[in-house]
Amino acid sequence: MATDQAQSEAADDSYAAFEERVRRIANVSNASGILQWDQEVVMPDEGTPARAQQLSALSAISHELLTADETGELLEELEDSDLEEDQAAVVREVRRKYDRETSVPQELVEEISETTTNAHPAWKQAKENDDFEEFAPVLEKLVELKREYAEHIDPDADPYEVLFSDYEPYIDLETAERVLERLREELVPLIDAVQDSDADLTTDAFAGEFDDDDQEALARDVLDSLGYDWGRGRLDTAPHPFSSGTQFDARVTTRFEEDDLLGSITSTIHEFGHANYTLGLPDEGYGTPLGEARDLSVHESQSRLWENHVGRSRPFWEQFLPTARERFPELEDVSPEAAYESANQVYDDNLIRVEADELTYHLHIVIRFEIERDLIRGDLAVDDVPEAWNDKYEEYLGVRPETDAEGCLQDIHWSHGSFGYFPTYSLGSVLAAQLYAAAEDELGDLDDDIREGDFEALNGWLRENVHRHGKRYTTPELIERATGRELTADPFLEYVTSKYGELYGLEDY
Amino acid sequence: MATDQAQSEAADDSYAAFEERVRRIANVSNASGILQWDQEVVMPDEGTPARAQQLSALSAISHELLTADETGELLEELEDSDLEEDQAAVVREVRRKYDRETSVPQELVEEISETTTNAHPAWKQAKENDDFEEFAPVLEKLVELKREYAEHIDPDADPYEVLFSDYEPYIDLETAERVLERLREELVPLIDAVQDSDADLTTDAFAGEFDDDDQEALARDVLDSLGYDWGRGRLDTAPHPFSSGTQFDARVTTRFEEDDLLGSITSTIHEFGHANYTLGLPDEGYGTPLGEARDLSVHESQSRLWENHVGRSRPFWEQFLPTARERFPELEDVSPEAAYESANQVYDDNLIRVEADELTYHLHIVIRFEIERDLIRGDLAVDDVPEAWNDKYEEYLGVRPETDAEGCLQDIHWSHGSFGYFPTYSLGSVLAAQLYAAAEDELGDLDDDIREGDFEALNGWLRENVHRHGKRYTTPELIERATGRELTADPFLEYVTSKYGELYGLEDY
Repeated sequence: MATDQAQSEAADDSYAAFEERVRRIANVSNASGILQWDQEVVMPDEGTPARAQQLSALSAISHELLTADETGELLEELEDSDLEEDQAAVVREVRRKYDRETSVPQELVEEISETTTNAHPAWKQAKENDDFEEFAPVLEKLVELKREYAEHIDPDADPYEVLFSDYEPYIDLETAERVLERLREELVPLIDAVQDSDADLTTDAFAGEFDDDDQEALARDVLDSLGYDWGRGRLDTAPHPFSSGTQFDARVTTRFEEDDLLGSITSTIHEFGHANYTLGLPDEGYGTPLGEARDLSVHESQSRLWENHVGRSRPFWEQFLPTARERFPELEDVSPEAAYESANQVYDDNLIRVEADELTYHLHIVIRFEIERDLIRGDLAVDDVPEAWNDKYEEYLGVRPETDAEGCLQDIHWSHGSFGYFPTYSLGSVLAAQLYAAAEDELGDLDDDIREGDFEALNGWLRENVHRHGKRYTTPELIERATGRELTADPFLEYVTSKYGELYGLEDY
Repeated sequence: MATDQAQSEAADDSYAAFEERVRRIANVSNASGILQWDQEVVMPDEGTPARAQQLSALSAISHELLTADETGELLEELEDSDLEEDQAAVVREVRRKYDRETSVPQELVEEISETTTNAHPAWKQAKENDDFEEFAPVLEKLVELKREYAEHIDPDADPYEVLFSDYEPYIDLETAERVLERLREELVPLIDAVQDSDADLTTDAFAGEFDDDDQEALARDVLDSLGYDWGRGRLDTAPHPFSSGTQFDARVTTRFEEDDLLGSITSTIHEFGHANYTLGLPDEGYGTPLGEARDLSVHESQSRLWENHVGRSRPFWEQFLPTARERFPELEDVSPEAAYESANQVYDDNLIRVEADELTYHLHIVIRFEIERDLIRGDLAVDDVPEAWNDKYEEYLGVRPETDAEGCLQDIHWSHGSFGYFPTYSLGSVLAAQLYAAAEDELGDLDDDIREGDFEALNGWLRENVHRHGKRYTTPELIERATGRELTADPFLEYVTSKYGELYGLEDY
């Protein structure tokens, strides 16, 4: 007995030391988050040289704390001990990061970091000049470096799978591929049917020019109406809207364009979804994976659920339009139905991902996914990217970009070396629909709630089934527990088929 | 030769390793600065628990980096090498901090930190209840802990001297005492004469109610007119105005009260002085003491120089009043002379330090200095503080506080455990006058420049003689080089005697 107790006390001590280390790493990383928010939102223009050094110091400190021998020793010791479920989850998450960060040589990390620093202006310049050739050598270099990076992590695995798992550690690439293929197969004919329909939707309910200050006031109304906790958040503007922070302080940014009121509303709701997830993480988990959000797909499921299932729904516009009219009396003659139709217009000639609708969006993603996967696997040469891109746009979306600027140079991601990131956007939408369907299975139809601006039941369900768990469960476990099934495109396809079938009067749908 | 070269290369390597460590510490500390700015200015109310942990993690990391054995070894090695002047200055500054931080046991540091965390609400409560007894036990504890702290640093020194040197490392306490005594001796009769004079100054030029937004616009006008670099700065509001940052990003905060337009203008100019010093530090010194400001007295000399020698001067109001009238047409009938007089009114019954004028201010400081010095030395018991305080107010300023709230409980400093901080306020004013006089010696009378809103020559002189040196020289060296003499109250006393003698029509002055 005494020996058992002594062993158990030693394990407690080790876990305490381990947790202290984990908390310190989290705090350094959260400090970086504040510095990044500051840089995007309030930092004076010329602050960059100092900020870059500060961020780089914090990042080096995090890396050194995580990859230190002590971390490895504590991990081994704890993996041999009897741990509580929550403790085991923390150990599992840290082990994963530890293994990845210790397997990649620091020189390679630095080379990638330098190359992406230079790749960004090269990409920007190439896009401005509409000249892929200018970007090609840098892209080539990044592809090589990221292949090398993947090989260090797992020499036996498909390198694209390794890169994908940087963003989505627990969803198999096979699952992701299956979902994306399914989306392509089902959405291409659905979009064709929409484009062939002679439905006459209102598309200009939000046409006009809208003052920035009034847009900001309305964005605050939106956040009020969704129940954003201002005691733990704030709203600012940023060139590329984002949300960041912790459960104690989860901030939203948005942007206002004079001729795009609808865009500012949907973007604000999207970022609310991210922040609302962060705010639902348990306070007591702060500093460990138990208080951190699951990965990109789950995060995106939260933003998409609120943006699309709530913010692009008919009852939402029935509820919210009167508020919008108070800020913008020119909307007096717009009906909720017209607003709903305008918020759900499917484009037939759009080339740009970030301007896409709920349907075509996923074909934009499928195209990027197929191209980057083939690039990393060596099945596609960098020089052939523009043609492959344009061919796929023609095949899947029926439009062919005339320039690289509105083709394969449109997105920033590859210049960051982010290969494997894009699929998480579609997985997020798919999961959003799956979660929303599960919530309605349990709570009943939510339309009445939305029409009354009452989001308590929906948010309570999300808190209970997703948010409060942090990283306690792996993503497949979390999905299975919340929805009773594994990740599937079915609910998403049912949702869009029913919604757009009705909107566009499609008989076969 | 070969050996010399090898030795010199080894020294270069050591210096490079040392500098990298120093830069990392500076970057962590500057990151903390951003987190603190964020907390004061933009953080949501409920963000505190996470922010406290982030700041504490960064502070622990800085401490560990500074006090690590490697730092000590590098210091010893470098102190035995031939270093360039700048390198030697960096080593000197780091050595000083290293010695102090390694000599105080971490448990004591933590105990002080915990005690001050609790002391702050106790002080606040005591002040609200106007009951010194509530604060006395905490103050007693803090005095003991700080004495213990001082003893660890230098068991043979006067403990107050040790504490003072935390804020002002290179000015002898003896020098500070001499200056403060001189101020007391000369200012008491000058203030008496002012109070006895029958001069009829305008004191209500800025009476009225002034809109916050317009005050903010005017604060921006002030900063524009002084030449604040908006590319490296910004203006926000905070409950207790401060300035913080680095040469790449030095921010100003201010506050607006409806009935105190003059206060917001002078406070903005004061904080500009601090930020302008920071912005004058050399870019290439960023991350080492060569790119950091000298200590509190020098920093305060910069804020006071701009606030008092510029912002409370007659030519400033001749220049700036038209701008103020554009924002506030109700100032139409105010003359520059009336504005000047109102900005320089000497109070005869003011008990509150932060509301004091340029003359009585220093007696408020002298009183705090004498009391805290005696407390730390054990020559005054905590319980006797209120009476000692009130007696001194009566003796030096001719007013006796009727309550502790407007007496010895008015300032926050002691609840922070900051004993030895107060003197630097007066030393700052004294040095401001000394620097301003030296600038005028070289550049000629600056009134015409100020009247034209041309601050280039003055600021150029400050950049050249103070700012660009960072911590290259010790404070006495910096003062001697800039002004040709050691720190002296003469220029300050000449300045106030001449200014207030003229304003109040004093014959003997």
